[in-house]
Amino acid sequence: MSEKEKITRVNARFYQAMSALDIGEMNAVWLDSEDAICIHPGREAIFGYHNIRESWEMIFNATESLSVTASEERLVIGSELAWVVCTETISMMIEDGLAAASAQATNIFRRLKNDEWRMIVHHASAIPFKPHEEQLETIN
Amino acid sequence: MSEKEKITRVNARFYQAMSALDIGEMNAVWLDSEDAICIHPGREAIFGYHNIRESWEMIFNATESLSVTASEERLVIGSELAWVVCTETISMMIEDGLAAASAQATNIFRRLKNDEWRMIVHHASAIPFKPHEEQLETIN
Repeated sequence: MSEKEKITRVNARFYQAMSALDIGEMNAVWLDSEDAICIHPGREAIFGYHNIRESWEMIFNATESLSVTASEERLVIGSELAWVVCTETISMMIEDGLAAASAQATNIFRRLKNDEWRMIVHHASAIPFKPHEEQLETIN
Repeated sequence: MSEKEKITRVNARFYQAMSALDIGEMNAVWLDSEDAICIHPGREAIFGYHNIRESWEMIFNATESLSVTASEERLVIGSELAWVVCTETISMMIEDGLAAASAQATNIFRRLKNDEWRMIVHHASAIPFKPHEEQLETIN
C-alpha cells in the first residue's frame, strides 16, 4: 500500500470512529503522545492524548447520533509527517430534528517506526454550510 | 541557531508581517507553493500561495490598523516539517473603536534545502476572547 493510501485510510478511519462514537477506534487512530493536539470547532486547543481522549468521550457520551464525512481532501506527505486538509460534513440528531454543519479540518499524521501513520493534530473550524454533492442529489 | 529558534522566529515574523500589513514580509515567510494552504477564521481553505497572497492583500487593503500577537506556542519539530500551535490575540481599529478577538492557530512549516523554514499551512479559528496577561495588567 502506498503512503498516500495509508494516510487516506487513517484519515477515513478517524471520521468512521467519530461517526460510530467509538472511543476504541479513536484510540487506534491517534498517537498516544503528549505532543498530540486537538482543536474542536470554536474551542481552545487540548494538549496531550490523555486529555484529547477525555474530550472525545464527553462528545460521544453527549451524542445520540453523528455522521461526519470528509471531502475535498488535499494530502501533503513528508518522510515522517503528513497532513490532510479536508472539508467535514457533519449531520447529527438533535431535539429539533436533523442538524447539519460544515467544518474545515487540518489533520496531521506522524509515521511510526512500524510504518503505521497516526494522527497527532486535528484542528477543525466551522465554515458556512456546504452540502455534499450526494446530499444535493438526494435533496433535488 | 537551533531549529527551535529558527521556527520560533519565522512564526513571530508571520505575526509581525500581519501586524505591519506588509505583503513583502508575508511573501518572505510563506513557501511559494501549490501545496500551501491558508484557512482564515470561519472561512474555507485557500489553496496555493498565489491565492493566499491575494487573500492577504485583500485583508491588508481593507484594514487600517491591526495587531496580532502569538502566545502559548507549542512546537513540534520533524526533520523536514514542523508546526506551531498558538493562541492569537487580535486587536484592530474599527469604526466603533478598538475591537479585540482571540483565535487558535496551527502553523505548519517546511524546511528548504538551505535550512530555511517557510510556512506552508496556516489554519486559524475563532475562540472565546482571552486577553493576554499583559493586557489584563494594563486593564487592572
